[in-house]
Amino acid sequence: MTRIAELPTPVALLDLEQMDRNIRRMQSHLDDLGVPLRPHVKTSKCPRVVAAQLAAGGRGITVSTLKEAEQFFAAGVRDIVYAVGVSPDKLPAVLALRQRGCELKIVTDNADAAAAIVAAGRAAGTTLEVWLEIDTDGHRSGLAPEGEALLAVGRTLHAGGIRLGGVLTHAGASYECDTPAALERMAEQERAGAVRAATRLRAAGLPCPVVSVGSTPTALAAVRREGVTEVRAGVYVFFDLVMHEVGVCRLDEIALSVLTTVIGHQVDKGWAIVDAGWMALSRDRGTQARRRDYGYGQVCDAGGTPLPGYVVTSTNQEHGVVARTGAPDRSIAARLPVGTRLRILPNHACATAAQHPEYAALAPNGEVERWPRFYGW
Amino acid sequence: MTRIAELPTPVALLDLEQMDRNIRRMQSHLDDLGVPLRPHVKTSKCPRVVAAQLAAGGRGITVSTLKEAEQFFAAGVRDIVYAVGVSPDKLPAVLALRQRGCELKIVTDNADAAAAIVAAGRAAGTTLEVWLEIDTDGHRSGLAPEGEALLAVGRTLHAGGIRLGGVLTHAGASYECDTPAALERMAEQERAGAVRAATRLRAAGLPCPVVSVGSTPTALAAVRREGVTEVRAGVYVFFDLVMHEVGVCRLDEIALSVLTTVIGHQVDKGWAIVDAGWMALSRDRGTQARRRDYGYGQVCDAGGTPLPGYVVTSTNQEHGVVARTGAPDRSIAARLPVGTRLRILPNHACATAAQHPEYAALAPNGEVERWPRFYGW
Repeated sequence: MTRIAELPTPVALLDLEQMDRNIRRMQSHLDDLGVPLRPHVKTSKCPRVVAAQLAAGGRGITVSTLKEAEQFFAAGVRDIVYAVGVSPDKLPAVLALRQRGCELKIVTDNADAAAAIVAAGRAAGTTLEVWLEIDTDGHRSGLAPEGEALLAVGRTLHAGGIRLGGVLTHAGASYECDTPAALERMAEQERAGAVRAATRLRAAGLPCPVVSVGSTPTALAAVRREGVTEVRAGVYVFFDLVMHEVGVCRLDEIALSVLTTVIGHQVDKGWAIVDAGWMALSRDRGTQARRRDYGYGQVCDAGGTPLPGYVVTSTNQEHGVVARTGAPDRSIAARLPVGTRLRILPNHACATAAQHPEYAALAPNGEVERWPRFYGW
Repeated sequence: MTRIAELPTPVALLDLEQMDRNIRRMQSHLDDLGVPLRPHVKTSKCPRVVAAQLAAGGRGITVSTLKEAEQFFAAGVRDIVYAVGVSPDKLPAVLALRQRGCELKIVTDNADAAAAIVAAGRAAGTTLEVWLEIDTDGHRSGLAPEGEALLAVGRTLHAGGIRLGGVLTHAGASYECDTPAALERMAEQERAGAVRAATRLRAAGLPCPVVSVGSTPTALAAVRREGVTEVRAGVYVFFDLVMHEVGVCRLDEIALSVLTTVIGHQVDKGWAIVDAGWMALSRDRGTQARRRDYGYGQVCDAGGTPLPGYVVTSTNQEHGVVARTGAPDRSIAARLPVGTRLRILPNHACATAAQHPEYAALAPNGEVERWPRFYGW
């Protein structure tokens, strides 16, 4: 039975009690709205974490890579949406997964990929299912809900023997919001755009059973769900400092941290040097342009209580500099002597988790288990 | 025999011919100065890459984690410096490696760790070798060359039965330089500080056989090597856009890139969307504050020729936005249609490589081999 004090550092520490609370919070919110939740597994890439999400009521999963699809299909999940626009070269791998029984849905937003999907389906003599990606916030990919291309791509796929499964959108711009009113507006914009696209497809005689929307902030902020058939969300399972700045979690709801050890000081500068650099924390500086900049992360004591004002101000590959914001703490060597263990709350849980081969999964009784995660494509 | 066109994307592409040129360049420069090179393996974490560095003349290796030490010791390397200040909890793993025959040297810059090292060496009845970390540029850890602590820590170790192997410094501040004159000054500052620390230790009757200095920029810029017994450098094996901005490599000397595929467009904005997001490129924005900001990377065609002005302007986890700097390229969908393959040159090779489980190692004849790398701690 491993305990925190015995863990080699740096390590990704996952507070299971808090993770379970986060899972229940999102699930019960969507249960109340009467909309199924399809968790996005890109945050954890961990079968144990995703099993907890599905056990709590999640229906199917969302993936960001075909490797995630392969790994979670191998772990027993069949209902999978690959929510990144497919390129023609990935279609053989998609077909292979479907032929093995995976109910893999793919996504596109353009005529070229649609033509390649039709050709691949015909060549394989199989029916592929495609969801059309809709752009509801201008932040990335997707077809405009009001544009002609939406219907053109839909017709190409439908006429080509593809099962048009529905529409999918992700209001990533919600990460820029920081008031409840702005979040609620963004959630409504996401919902209304996706429903509008579905309505136009149906009016054109095209099938569109699914209307899939979501991001953690809009999922939690939404009050209207008319026309939506499912919600996707990912980072809620851990939460992070960006979500805290967006306003959808408290600091003590962040379930993921990096456990690190003090290895030295530069007393004149008020620095403690820790063994978590950007390799362990990631290079993500997601709070850089927020109201509050946490540097590379908020410093907490070994038990997880934040040390107010102490952040990781800079990083090298395996070094982090812990300092107090404002006046230097010239007593830092006495406050945090060599060997002190600290937890660092991450800016962006998806990015920080990705740097680690496993989670040190901390149970309420203090025992730690290794929960492997995977990476790569 | 795999070729580039058959590789699933995104993938870390390693141009072996260019890598070999980079290795020869650094080795012959240091051969000319008459100083041995100890490559830092944190950049590649790949036994095949490091084998090429050692075959070219590298003597021993530098590591940033004990996992690197374990992996490269298992691959047959015995002479290893762990160049991050050791924390007391890591000493059992250090002792275990030494007991298996690894000539592992550890580093410290403070009295608390020194006391723990002495105690661990005594308890194990073995002689540990320690190099003192010297701060020659104020950027991170290390003892001041002129300070009293240098001698105090040295005496604690020496009196405690530890082999004082030498001094080690790393002028990471050289990454901020961008003129040959500034680089040469920084190289001399690094050399002079390390030599001064060694001189003071010796004058105090303490042994200090090794004077180890280095960073890729200072290693290449150095013209004086008096008193230095070895140079450490890492990123030179691949080079990257930061090193280009520092002024120590041309764009066409960057051996590492991320091969990616165009998956869609937002024509009105002049965007091509590619399947390399921050997961494949890393979140490193190392050129953000340089004279030229390459966003998340310089875009090249599939053959590796840069497309001037085209960079990855933003990323999500598995999406990258390719755009022209300045006026939007509204012909981008014709220029870079769906399915187009591109190479992205990285801001920081160590960070980008770390996102990938393997390199697609491209031989001059166009064949590609998989070269695994490892991650974690």
